Amino acid sequence: MSRIVIALGGNALGNSLPEQMAAVKITSRAIVDLIEEGHDVVISHGNGPQVGMINQAMLEYSRIEPTQKPTPLSVCVAMSQAYIGYDLQNAIREEMLNRGFEKPVVSMVTQVRVDPEDPAFANPTKPIGRFMDKEAADEFAEKNGYIMKEDAGRGYRRVVASPKPIEIVEISAIRKLVDNGEIVIACGGGGIPVTLIGNHLKGAPAVIDKDFASAVMARDLDADYLIILTAVEKVAINFKKENEQWLDHMTVEEAKKYAGEGQFAPGSMLPKVQAACDFAASKPGRKALITLLEKAKDGINGRTGTTITL
Amino acid sequence: MSRIVIALGGNALGNSLPEQMAAVKITSRAIVDLIEEGHDVVISHGNGPQVGMINQAMLEYSRIEPTQKPTPLSVCVAMSQAYIGYDLQNAIREEMLNRGFEKPVVSMVTQVRVDPEDPAFANPTKPIGRFMDKEAADEFAEKNGYIMKEDAGRGYRRVVASPKPIEIVEISAIRKLVDNGEIVIACGGGGIPVTLIGNHLKGAPAVIDKDFASAVMARDLDADYLIILTAVEKVAINFKKENEQWLDHMTVEEAKKYAGEGQFAPGSMLPKVQAACDFAASKPGRKALITLLEKAKDGINGRTGTTITL
Repeated sequence: MSRIVIALGGNALGNSLPEQMAAVKITSRAIVDLIEEGHDVVISHGNGPQVGMINQAMLEYSRIEPTQKPTPLSVCVAMSQAYIGYDLQNAIREEMLNRGFEKPVVSMVTQVRVDPEDPAFANPTKPIGRFMDKEAADEFAEKNGYIMKEDAGRGYRRVVASPKPIEIVEISAIRKLVDNGEIVIACGGGGIPVTLIGNHLKGAPAVIDKDFASAVMARDLDADYLIILTAVEKVAINFKKENEQWLDHMTVEEAKKYAGEGQFAPGSMLPKVQAACDFAASKPGRKALITLLEKAKDGINGRTGTTITL
Repeated sequence: MSRIVIALGGNALGNSLPEQMAAVKITSRAIVDLIEEGHDVVISHGNGPQVGMINQAMLEYSRIEPTQKPTPLSVCVAMSQAYIGYDLQNAIREEMLNRGFEKPVVSMVTQVRVDPEDPAFANPTKPIGRFMDKEAADEFAEKNGYIMKEDAGRGYRRVVASPKPIEIVEISAIRKLVDNGEIVIACGGGGIPVTLIGNHLKGAPAVIDKDFASAVMARDLDADYLIILTAVEKVAINFKKENEQWLDHMTVEEAKKYAGEGQFAPGSMLPKVQAACDFAASKPGRKALITLLEKAKDGINGRTGTTITL
């Protein structure tokens, strides 16, 4: 049996609480397929719509309660981990019980350390929260010290940095729980981004890519597999061209060559392939798998998906 | 060395994020005093101001985004666990490092099972959220199906049930972490209240008393001590009367006798004494201690506070 870290995308979670409660039921079936085969499973997940919603809610609150400042993004990420983890762990628990077995499943508040000198802080690119017109955006930026950028003709949004993860602060607890037969949901939303200043872990106004954070977590848990779920069954080169080719396997070297050729879309497949390479390159024998949620079990059993190895 | 569950009151946490960040520094000193002596420490905490704030923020959000329904109270409790746990665990971590040692510290999303037939559901008494005038309260009640009550001449507030805790859903994970040297923050806000319906854990619109939940957690972790922190150094009988008497020790039997005489204020010292009795009565040798935050260490060493034993 293998140790598997599985990184769920936003489409596994929905855009509102009723959507989330429906989505986690579907998601849980694919996860419990792996648990049922006897694998140790650790789950991470995105939080794009959720952290945007929580951030906006806390901002509205600070408007009606002027004694309250806007809640830092790092705290909103923390809240999103509980918002999602609570529903997801219960859906997994229920799916196991419906199949006649039970393993404990828990959600951990997880911080991920980033470098305060990460170049991403000088060039925030990740949009969060709602769209505004220029006037509102300028006022918003000045009042809160935010950076706003025009987004594809749809208006202005706050942009935040997306620095690279260095280490998972709570890794020892995650490891102890997995070693002892618990299913752990951790690194939600890529983890709460923190920088180390002396002995202090300071929240950073950033959002970490969940696939990169999952690769670090999988490496440090000595996992056998990192499964990165996405909207396609396999990775393609020459995507949507005449000579399109779906790949069963890439070596890290091949993947980097394709990436250098511009085969993978930035902000979409490219970071997934990079995260997969990070994990696969960390030790011989480690396998990254990129596939659809509902194909995770087939992928682990070698029947589909794109596997990346050293 | 002992295993200690320590239940922090709302005053240990403040009413806003800047207040919380200042408060957790003070709170951490008292907690690290116990960790430094070699005790295994599990921390629970209240969430009154925080869950009210989060509940209101999510409600405001559902007003400006009509596609979003108000977030259930159970989800708000989950979010408050991360909101508080993240700051509290970092303050504890930093205080340990400042003293030259380190132990891992984590926050766990924690659910607590309650009985759907608990009589508390028929008589909600716990006020949460903001005050409203009668007209706004009636509209609010009708729109959301809430129960509103007039609160001491200050206006109307939503009231929710405060059912008794039965079991901590994530107890096995908490136990494994404590057994392996981690400091765990769990059962925040008394835990996310859930009822078991078939295989499904359903969030309940309720808030569990954190002292009662902590007593259940301490019992099921086989703790030696439950420390319930409050605003006085010791429990008194004939409180504020001529014959006022501060108590160093009570047996469970004595405590119940005093409670029957009306010695302890309902909603204040009474539930603390009852929770202390629940834990002390669960096994010979178990000690509950009621005292001030800054006296926790002295209390454990027998120098102050009120100890309750079988």
